[in-house]
Amino acid sequence: MIYNIKNFLLGKALKTEQLKGEKFSIFWGLPILSSDAISSVAYAGQEILFVLIPAVGYMAFTDLIHVSLMIIFLLFILVFSYRQVIDCYPNGGGAYIVAQDNLGVTPSLIAAAALCIDYILTVAVSIAAGAAAITSAFSSLLPYSVAICVVLIIIMTIGNLRGISESAKSFAIPPYLFISIMVIMIVVGFVKYNIMGIHPKPLLVIPGFTNALTLFIFLKAFAAGCTALTGVEAVSNGIPSFKEPSQKSAKTVLLLLGCVAFVLFGGISYLATIYKPVYNSDITVIAQLAIQIFGQNSFMFYIIQAATALILIMAANTSYNGFPLLLSIIAKDGYVPRQFSKRGSRLGYSNGIMFLSIAATLLLVYFKGDNHNLLPLYAVGVFVSFTLAQTGMVLKWLRHKKGSWRHKALINGIGAILSLVATIVIAATKFKEGAWIVCLLIPLIVFFMSRVKAHYVIVADELKLNIDQKPKIINHEKQKNYMIIPIDSLNKSFLKSYNYARSFTEDIIIFHVSVDEEMTDKLLEKWEQCGDGIPIVVKKSPYRNLIGPLVKFIESEEFVIMPGDTITVVMPQFVVKKWWQNILHNQTSLFIQSTLLKRRNIALTTLPYIINE
Amino acid sequence: MIYNIKNFLLGKALKTEQLKGEKFSIFWGLPILSSDAISSVAYAGQEILFVLIPAVGYMAFTDLIHVSLMIIFLLFILVFSYRQVIDCYPNGGGAYIVAQDNLGVTPSLIAAAALCIDYILTVAVSIAAGAAAITSAFSSLLPYSVAICVVLIIIMTIGNLRGISESAKSFAIPPYLFISIMVIMIVVGFVKYNIMGIHPKPLLVIPGFTNALTLFIFLKAFAAGCTALTGVEAVSNGIPSFKEPSQKSAKTVLLLLGCVAFVLFGGISYLATIYKPVYNSDITVIAQLAIQIFGQNSFMFYIIQAATALILIMAANTSYNGFPLLLSIIAKDGYVPRQFSKRGSRLGYSNGIMFLSIAATLLLVYFKGDNHNLLPLYAVGVFVSFTLAQTGMVLKWLRHKKGSWRHKALINGIGAILSLVATIVIAATKFKEGAWIVCLLIPLIVFFMSRVKAHYVIVADELKLNIDQKPKIINHEKQKNYMIIPIDSLNKSFLKSYNYARSFTEDIIIFHVSVDEEMTDKLLEKWEQCGDGIPIVVKKSPYRNLIGPLVKFIESEEFVIMPGDTITVVMPQFVVKKWWQNILHNQTSLFIQSTLLKRRNIALTTLPYIINE
Repeated sequence: MIYNIKNFLLGKALKTEQLKGEKFSIFWGLPILSSDAISSVAYAGQEILFVLIPAVGYMAFTDLIHVSLMIIFLLFILVFSYRQVIDCYPNGGGAYIVAQDNLGVTPSLIAAAALCIDYILTVAVSIAAGAAAITSAFSSLLPYSVAICVVLIIIMTIGNLRGISESAKSFAIPPYLFISIMVIMIVVGFVKYNIMGIHPKPLLVIPGFTNALTLFIFLKAFAAGCTALTGVEAVSNGIPSFKEPSQKSAKTVLLLLGCVAFVLFGGISYLATIYKPVYNSDITVIAQLAIQIFGQNSFMFYIIQAATALILIMAANTSYNGFPLLLSIIAKDGYVPRQFSKRGSRLGYSNGIMFLSIAATLLLVYFKGDNHNLLPLYAVGVFVSFTLAQTGMVLKWLRHKKGSWRHKALINGIGAILSLVATIVIAATKFKEGAWIVCLLIPLIVFFMSRVKAHYVIVADELKLNIDQKPKIINHEKQKNYMIIPIDSLNKSFLKSYNYARSFTEDIIIFHVSVDEEMTDKLLEKWEQCGDGIPIVVKKSPYRNLIGPLVKFIESEEFVIMPGDTITVVMPQFVVKKWWQNILHNQTSLFIQSTLLKRRNIALTTLPYIINE
Repeated sequence: MIYNIKNFLLGKALKTEQLKGEKFSIFWGLPILSSDAISSVAYAGQEILFVLIPAVGYMAFTDLIHVSLMIIFLLFILVFSYRQVIDCYPNGGGAYIVAQDNLGVTPSLIAAAALCIDYILTVAVSIAAGAAAITSAFSSLLPYSVAICVVLIIIMTIGNLRGISESAKSFAIPPYLFISIMVIMIVVGFVKYNIMGIHPKPLLVIPGFTNALTLFIFLKAFAAGCTALTGVEAVSNGIPSFKEPSQKSAKTVLLLLGCVAFVLFGGISYLATIYKPVYNSDITVIAQLAIQIFGQNSFMFYIIQAATALILIMAANTSYNGFPLLLSIIAKDGYVPRQFSKRGSRLGYSNGIMFLSIAATLLLVYFKGDNHNLLPLYAVGVFVSFTLAQTGMVLKWLRHKKGSWRHKALINGIGAILSLVATIVIAATKFKEGAWIVCLLIPLIVFFMSRVKAHYVIVADELKLNIDQKPKIINHEKQKNYMIIPIDSLNKSFLKSYNYARSFTEDIIIFHVSVDEEMTDKLLEKWEQCGDGIPIVVKKSPYRNLIGPLVKFIESEEFVIMPGDTITVVMPQFVVKKWWQNILHNQTSLFIQSTLLKRRNIALTTLPYIINE
């Protein structure tokens, strides 16, 4: 039944040969790879206002422009830096690969840990913001925002386990819709205010005071806005998905992404300075602007909210492409459990997808689905990876010194330094609000990754065959194969185990743990009547424990084995028709497995006994 | 390490011979067995007021006396009815046993289900009320009431898993403390008001209006107060714990219990009529009375709150004696999983204890630790079991017709009828507030219990040996013992499995699932060099599934087996030193176990491969 549900939800399993990637042109690639970056327009501006308004009051709307310009400047530095990464890593150059290639193992693991954290946060933040766009339009849904988030994640999980990349082209529509609608809003907003002279009142109360901007507040606002830059890496990771010439296309897309973000981010910031929306946890800044420009309950208002929600969901979905892929690369290198490198029945990296969904859901539930609570954790990871990638690039240029390497090293150098500064600013200004969690997690994850690698190396070493190691020639005369059959009462299930064991060997030990003397006597009597002469070894268990006496017996001197002998414990296991019936039987064989197998080299044979009902 | 923690918390395992029950005299038995009944004084009165005050206003304090008298009347009927149960069932006569003995299987299961539900509710209700006594004294703890409840349950769980019955006598102190302190409060309250003429103002606002009492409100208030009667069965269950003459002692204790409840319940109701406390979720009625009589922050006020909290915890603890015992009796009859009848390492029925704790914790968390939310579910179960037990007794008298049977049947008959009426009243008046959950659960549990029994009967039938069924004589010439060894890559772990299998049989099949052709070719080449001639069976797995092709191969016509042949799949299993390393390896053998064992009679041998780190 579970199998049928799975088939219904995920579709039938796909063959490995069916693995194929759709290739994008620039026109399709831009929206699909840039939705993360573009969607941050929906929350970055409002986070800046959240910092500025309480500190500088009415001046916030002027200062917003300065902060936004600074962020757009940083964006273009990153765009040009990453265009050079694309040149050098035609197979996709994530920070992990660039750092591994140029800086060594530890920096690459730091980049990997930072990226993993930020992929998870991208899902949580974008979904929370998407839910906020929905609840801003329908305020009656406000109490259900966590539920909305969880439902969205479930839908995305199923979609990605099915492998939604088939229908990837339809994913290009929401970003284009969002971009057009934002451009329309910016233009209409500009025209109405400046040309038609319509100056609607702000929806919410604006503080009456004005203060001068301090450096700390400026940096804090800048850090808040840096969340807009998180999506840049996606393009350089996505090179293989472009049609030839893929590198050139990717570079163009990256530049276009910069321009789109410039227009939208700058435009929205400008609108904010004239329409003066205020941070509020119940209604987003975009929603406030839409109401002022197009009117409450207007058609355009709902379209804007819908487009915002959609692109934010798309943005979360980019993590579903990026995270499982990154994890599979790290898993192939042996730094995380190998299961992450295996493709599921629909060819997606299903373990990575599930991990991402569970982690994001926990975050959303813990932070009550409020994207404002999550944002302080965000962006630290991305900027750590930016810094490492750009530093790696600088070292690469210094090492190879080919062509116009000085010029290129300079661009990446500026990128590295500015990323480092941004990392420090973000971590410092948001430290107390939550960035400390990320600062703590990154080294912990790096430590875990190196432990995992160490374990895999040891296992591989231990398993490796010497060249001359061949199957042993067995001396059946000398070697004894013991089979131990525990008996509780004399029934068909025991008899099946006994017959099975007898078909292999004569060295049989029937072992009985006595908890109740009366029952033991009955058993021995019965066995004397219908047994075939092999005695039952009886051990008392004063502590009513069934496994302890068996282990003790095998380890005792009473039981002498020679090198080359094998010991096999034969356990019947009831196989029932319905899952709930399993709780009606002692799952002794599972317990035995975990205790017995650790002690000595004892094999455990599980013999099914199927209960027909 | 887990083992050490367990030893530290629970103490060392005890031998079966160490099982011994302490026997009580009347003096010790009364407090220990009656804490459940007596403790309900702490909440029953306030629940009656909760119903009355909004309906009849100022008249509530007069009507309270009428309702209380009615409940005390019912209490004495039950006391006399149950004294007759004690006469007939010297080994303890719970409703389950009385119903089973006189009414048949289904009524006994209904009684069992009802009792189980109410044992769990006793824990939840008492703990919640105990926490309320604490937070009434220290209002700063109010936000942590759920946490307080959970901590109390954890402490009780550990205590009961250790087996606290050893120190049972110290459990007699809190009930006696509570009884004395309540009697003091009643006397002082009476004297101050009536003799010294001190009339303190009520702490909270009393409604100004007065209404006449309707029948429905009267019944509702009566139902709310019936929660005071839940502890009566404990004494008739506890007969074996009394010193000889145990039946006589138990009967005396039951009568004394009635008298104590009469004094306390009646006294508190009387105090309420003169001091006029009002239901409030932040401060209990007892606490309000204590403040009015002894003053806020007085020594006596804190003593009263402490004694109330303590006796409520004792009351919860009576369920920890009753529930696991009842469950073990039902388990021995085969109606619930057999694991509930096994004694744990400290001789307590640890599975029952754990089940009780988990169920009560879930209830407390779901109902936010508020005993007022839980009470509507309470008492239905107990009165269902009262009705069944008393009806059973009536039938017993009618059947045997010995001695003064007419007189006795009359008493039990009145008990049965009044219990039935009370059941209907409670279920009807509290239905919407939560009693419907219990009305739904009882038949569900009865259904589950009969399914469990049916399963055990079938399994026992299937396992039963015919008298002439003896171990088979095996024809080693004709019979083949196949051993299938899956191979992934040629390493020490495979070689170990191979050598193991070779030591038993020559009929070996090496089975390889090919996911990657290149790796398969390498493997075959290597095996040709160092193998011993046995070929590798290679099956492609287009769906990257490792178990599917194996199952398909075994079930295919390619693999012909004769009756009597055995098939064993030999799987190596990595045994790692640290628990977290398990997630680094595919737990393939666990998966194989669950899929393979279901298909056909295939044995599975797990061969440990210990990784030394």
